[in-house]
Formats: sequence, C-alpha cells, structure tokens
Amino acid sequence: MNESLLKNSVGIVKPQKFHFGSPLHLRSGKVLPNFDLVFETYGKLNTNRSNAILVCHALSGDHHAAGFHSSEDKKAGWWDACIGPGKVIDTNIFFVVCPNNLGGCAGSTGPASIKPETGKFFGPDFPVVTVDDWVNSQAMLADKLKISKWAAVIGGSLGGMQVLKWAISYPERLHSAICIAAAPKLSAQNIAFNEVARQSITNDPDFCKGHYLDKGTYPKRGLTLARMVGHITYLSDSAMRAKFGKTVSDFEKEGDNFGRDLRAGTLSFGFNVDFQVESYLHYQGERFSKNFDANTYLLMTKALDYFDPSFDFNGDLSKAFSASKCKFLLVSFSTDWRFPPERSREIVNALLNTRKEVSYLEIEADQGHDAFLMPIPRYTSALKSYLYRMYDEIKDNAP
Amino acid sequence: MNESLLKNSVGIVKPQKFHFGSPLHLRSGKVLPNFDLVFETYGKLNTNRSNAILVCHALSGDHHAAGFHSSEDKKAGWWDACIGPGKVIDTNIFFVVCPNNLGGCAGSTGPASIKPETGKFFGPDFPVVTVDDWVNSQAMLADKLKISKWAAVIGGSLGGMQVLKWAISYPERLHSAICIAAAPKLSAQNIAFNEVARQSITNDPDFCKGHYLDKGTYPKRGLTLARMVGHITYLSDSAMRAKFGKTVSDFEKEGDNFGRDLRAGTLSFGFNVDFQVESYLHYQGERFSKNFDANTYLLMTKALDYFDPSFDFNGDLSKAFSASKCKFLLVSFSTDWRFPPERSREIVNALLNTRKEVSYLEIEADQGHDAFLMPIPRYTSALKSYLYRMYDEIKDNAP
Repeated sequence: MNESLLKNSVGIVKPQKFHFGSPLHLRSGKVLPNFDLVFETYGKLNTNRSNAILVCHALSGDHHAAGFHSSEDKKAGWWDACIGPGKVIDTNIFFVVCPNNLGGCAGSTGPASIKPETGKFFGPDFPVVTVDDWVNSQAMLADKLKISKWAAVIGGSLGGMQVLKWAISYPERLHSAICIAAAPKLSAQNIAFNEVARQSITNDPDFCKGHYLDKGTYPKRGLTLARMVGHITYLSDSAMRAKFGKTVSDFEKEGDNFGRDLRAGTLSFGFNVDFQVESYLHYQGERFSKNFDANTYLLMTKALDYFDPSFDFNGDLSKAFSASKCKFLLVSFSTDWRFPPERSREIVNALLNTRKEVSYLEIEADQGHDAFLMPIPRYTSALKSYLYRMYDEIKDNAP
Repeated sequence: MNESLLKNSVGIVKPQKFHFGSPLHLRSGKVLPNFDLVFETYGKLNTNRSNAILVCHALSGDHHAAGFHSSEDKKAGWWDACIGPGKVIDTNIFFVVCPNNLGGCAGSTGPASIKPETGKFFGPDFPVVTVDDWVNSQAMLADKLKISKWAAVIGGSLGGMQVLKWAISYPERLHSAICIAAAPKLSAQNIAFNEVARQSITNDPDFCKGHYLDKGTYPKRGLTLARMVGHITYLSDSAMRAKFGKTVSDFEKEGDNFGRDLRAGTLSFGFNVDFQVESYLHYQGERFSKNFDANTYLLMTKALDYFDPSFDFNGDLSKAFSASKCKFLLVSFSTDWRFPPERSREIVNALLNTRKEVSYLEIEADQGHDAFLMPIPRYTSALKSYLYRMYDEIKDNAP
C-alpha cells in the first residue's frame, strides 16, 4: 500500500456487525422481528463515553466512511477527506460510528439479505423503511455501544435528514446536530426525479419484479439509467461545464477563444456516444450498477420522498423541533440545485421560530450537491473549528 | 363545436403536403433522394408575397400550430394562443406557414414513414437529421410556395435554433429572426438529460432496435419515461410547486399555514404512486407515448445535441452571424433552467459583437421553459407590437 495514502488516515479498518434480536416497529406498521447492523468505528471512546459522533450516510453510502479495508484497497471510505487523525472530524479526540442503514446492501439487513424464515432473499418483500426507522435502529445501536448521548450526529443529504430526525426523536441523546446539504422535505421536482429513477429500474425486464437475485440476474441497464439521472442532479450545471466543456460565455469570461470541447470526437450521426458527458454518465452508472442493489436503491428513494418531520406536527416544522435540546449547525452550498440553500434556510427559520441555538453556513462552491463530500477549505475549516469548540464543551460530561 | 373556441381562431384548417423529388444532401453526408413535407398555413399571402411568417416547431411539436382539424376537435394547435386573427401573430395581416420537420411523425417523411424503395417502415434506418437539414428543407418549401423572403422566421426552443440557422444560412431570405427560449448550443447538462431520454427508449425491450413498427409493437414504457424526464426539465421548480404542493417557505411567504399537499393521499409504504407529481408525470408521459414515434424522439434529441452554428466558424458565434442581414429579437424566461436567460444573452452578445440589430426581452415568468408557449401578457404584447411594427416595414416590399 502506498504509504502516502495512510497519512492522516484511520488506516485499515474492520467492519463490525451487531445482531438485534428485539423487534423493530417500522413507520409503515410492519415489524422487523430481528435484524443486523454493520458499522465501522474510528478513534477511541473516552472513559466517560462523551466523545462519540454518529455519521449518517446518504442514498448510496454505507458504513465504510473512512480508511481502507485492506492493504490492497485503493479507495478510501466515502468521507475519508473529513474523517481521520487531525482531520475535520478528528479521530484523535472523537470516537466516530458509521452504520450501514437498514435496507442497505453493504451488510445490514436489507433486500439482498437472506430472510431467515424462508432461506431466500428478501428482495421486494423487504419492507419500506423510513428515516424514522433508521434513527430508531441507530438508537438501538447506541444502546448496545453504551453511548447514551452523542457528542454530535452529522450527515449530508439524506444523512442530514437523519440528523434532523435525531434531534426531534431523541432530544436527550445528542449534544449537536450537524445537517449538511439537506432539506426539510423533498420538493415536487426532487420526487419527480426519484420516480424517474424508480421507473428506470422497474422497467428493466431483468428486474423481475424485484426477484432478480433469486433468478440469478440483475437490472444492470435500469440501475445504470437510474444512477445517470441521479448523477445529473448531484452535479451543478457549472460543474458539468467545467468537467465536459465550456459555453461561449465561459470562454468570453476567461478571455479565451471560443471552444467546442463538449464533443468526444467527430460526430457519429448515429446513436453512439458523441459527447464526453455521455460516456462519463455511462461509466458512472455502470460502475455503480455493479456495486449496488436495485431494491435498496428503490427503498432509499422512497425514504427520501417520505421524509417530512413536520407531518406529525400538523405540517409545522417549528413545532417538530420544539422539544429538541441540541444545538444545530446547518450547511448548504451555493450551486446545489437538488437541495439548494433556501431549503436549509427553511430549517434555520423553523429552528429560530422555536428559539433553538442554530448556526448556518452557506458555502460558495461550484460542485453542486456533491460539494458536501469535498474538502472545500471554507467548509472544512468552519466545520473543524465548530467540532473543536464543541469538544471542549462535552469532553468532561458525565457518563 | 363550442362557438367560443372559434373566437379569434383561424378555424378549421387542413394540412397540405408537398412532395420534393430533388435530393436533399444531409449534414451527415447521407442523401434523402426525395421526401414529403406536411404543413399548414393560416392567413393570406399578400400580392407582393412579403407578409409570410415561418413558424418552426420544437422537439415534440408539428405543423398543427393553430386552429382545429375538425368540428369535433377539442384541442387547438400547439401555438393557438399566439396565432390567429387579432392575436400576437395576427393572421389578418400575416400569412403563416408551419411545416412538420423532416424526421417527424406527423406526416413529413420520417422514421414512421414507408421507405418507397423497400415498402417497409424507415424505422431506425432514417438518417440523423440536423437543424441545418431542416432549414434547407424549409427553404425548398419556401421556393415551392414562391416566398423569396420571409417577413419573419420565428420559433421557441429547438424552433429558435432553426431561426438562428435561417439567419446564418439564408441571410437574404428573412427580414426578422425571432428566437425564443433557445441557446447557441446545448450545455453538458442538456445533453445529459437527452442521453437519459434516449437510454430510456432504447432500453425498452419493445424498442426492438428501432424496428417496433415492423414488429407491431411500440416502446410505450421507454417513451413514457423519456417524456417524464423531459417534462421535469420543461417545468421550473416553482411551477412544479405551484402545481403539486408547496414548501414551508411558500406558506411562510403567503402567511398561510404550513402545508403538506404534495401527497396524493395516505402513503402506500410501497411503490405505488404516493405524490401528485408522480401521477401527473405518468399521465403526461403515457399520453405522449401514444401520439409520438420513439425513433422521431431519438432523432429530435440528437438534432438538439448537434446544434452548434459556431462549429463551422471555428467556434466563433459572432463570425457565424457575420453575414446575417436580418434584425433579431431574442426572448428568454426567468425560471427557464433548460435554456436560461444567460444562454440567450450569449446569442445577444455574439450578435452585438458583429454589429447586428438586436432586441432582447427577458420575461419574468414562473412556468420555466414551457413559458414560451403561454400567453404571458408582457411577452405576448411585446411580441405583438414588434410584429406590427415589422409589418409596416415589410408590407410594401417588392415581390
């Protein structure tokens, strides 16, 4: 392994798995009689168990947030840029826990798991799970780890929604809620894109009504297409332009000549790939389709669509937060058109209405929704300083 | 027929069809040895043949721009809001011509036509056509109609791109170019969405590699999905919100209570339709899929992707326009995120660089890209006054 990769890294990590034998009552009314959660931890839990941070993953994430699984591993965990010794979430002082969510496909019980009662894959029979259910199962994980109160619960996008729900459902069990690039609920446009992704998958004849694993196949084309749609919404128009070609006005701004570098080569005058962005999306989509379960993708999009913490409070988001006791940090990114800054400001306003302690950071960044994963200096330095200050507040808390 | 529908209408119209026996050399290098164009006309050509306006349609449009096809017809042509006696394009003074583009599926030669040589459908063998090819075929139509110079060529979206190409390819043959809600070429994001639409269609097993007509089937699910994707990009986020539900901040702005009316009813906790926007998109997509040819849809998206009039001028859009002699009107809409105002301003800037007479109108409108089809007062009154002033300039032109 390249030594430089290990610099400031949590190093080689090993996922752990807990079995939960007690039933989980889901928001849908269904009950999971028992389940597994796979998770990773980084850093050390202090003796008074006050320095634990829960990291919640987004749609396509998992428990592998930092470090490497083996010395041959070339790719670090999905948030390695921010988790490690001396990094934003400094594992020299914090104990970080990141579980794979229920319904996931990286080791926690989900559609690609074997249903113990039948010995067959859950497949489409796995119940629809919600952000509420995830937060409840994460609380069970905290119990088992004997963490009565998180120093912080932190996450971006769908992960940020779990953060909000933690603050509402378990007001005594977190000191800080850090919600990045999220929204109080989806817009009609967000839901529309999710529905397109779902249709892409279920239209694929290899989907077999969700029983593709039993049939020894998988909906590669459908999942590829779903991911292509998603990917477009994660990138800003300007990020795409920077990656795949410039418009006339870009060149004007830069004082450069006019360009036409969107093209991948000579036009095919057919239906082959003609533009760089097409081959990029195909590549990203196909790569994703090999490593992700289609039923899980469907479940994750529904969890997004269903998220609405105000629902139980007659649509009043402020009321939803009224019992919360933690402090809040909200972060948004200027070119994120999936969950734009105005959606974070809705949350900030709801929190202010109910007199919570809230900080809000709006970061200028060109990368669109994906920015939340990137080490953008103003973002990471602000987050890091927030966490260090918080550490001083919580480090001596009683167990 | 309801009499009120006929008020200010061009009334019952009958499409005409011309056969062109001379070959059309396509941009791709291929040749169409002969072809048909179907078109409609409204109003009367004056004696000196100076009052003709060419209307160019967009991706899913056709030659039926105004009026009704029969007394049972409940739906008027696609731009009936703007074409008729006393309307924006006033058929009391103008003679309006609207053809269905080559490769279309409404009567002009296209993939759903019978190839004379084989007696079978063209299907996927119909050549890829470009905006350049359309403009050339429209010029042949003008020849046949003995219209040597259009008073105006006008179109929105992909129609606006044809307008630009007219000004470049046939500088002597139009007095005015009116280009609405268009762009000088597609962005990477635009192309990405088109590629998703194409994949949706070609992934459908009923697409049969384009030979679905020969096989007596059609890719309904694929075309539905493609249209769903398109439809999302035609509507602004705010238009969707207005149609399908409001966010917390909307209700705050309006001083109303918080709402949750995105939902279609009780959540299914399954993969049924849960939100109004889903059923709307399904309905729109399915309705479209019944009336449109999938191969044509593929061709239209490629014509969009390939459009780049600067390409033959070393990427310099100003140079592309340097030989143009017409005056220009550009129109854009504030919430159009498919072809936003900045893309129209790129065209305006290129025209100014080469000292053309250009007017530019940026309209505040909530409807996104679709706004160009709608009778928005500031838009229609400006366009109408522009056309009346133009009429005074051209009405006495020599034939």
